[in-house]
Amino acid sequence: MDIVFIIGSLAATLTTAAFLPQVIKAHNSKHTKDLSMVMCVLLTFGLILWIFYGLAYSSLPIILANSITLLLCLYLLYLKVKYG
Amino acid sequence: MDIVFIIGSLAATLTTAAFLPQVIKAHNSKHTKDLSMVMCVLLTFGLILWIFYGLAYSSLPIILANSITLLLCLYLLYLKVKYG
Repeated sequence: MDIVFIIGSLAATLTTAAFLPQVIKAHNSKHTKDLSMVMCVLLTFGLILWIFYGLAYSSLPIILANSITLLLCLYLLYLKVKYG
Repeated sequence: MDIVFIIGSLAATLTTAAFLPQVIKAHNSKHTKDLSMVMCVLLTFGLILWIFYGLAYSSLPIILANSITLLLCLYLLYLKVKYG
């Protein structure tokens, strides 16, 4: 396993894991007023494109990271729509 | 300019641009209660690693996107520390 793969995997884990506490906070508090709806929407479209980019380069860290982040982001978007 | 470069650049633009409305919202409202501090911190470290990953693959979209996102994320972290 080379060092670049490890760095990519760590990067992927961190930026993906980052959205989990945000989703948990929004889910538990039922408050999303300070979250930007535009951010959620732009992130969703951007993450979909990153997945295509990762597929084109056969980069597993990019594909995996952005797929999980996309799921978290979609749930955050749902919470934002629900709680405003 | 090949299609993969265009997809990567679009992805980079969207996921980077996504944080701008969040930063503007937090800056203007002076309210960051619903934002997760853990998200900001994990994103910061993750983005730094993505920049190294992009450098290793000489991927301009990954390097540029994550550098600008990192700056926005650091400012968001500053606002979160300031407003709580």
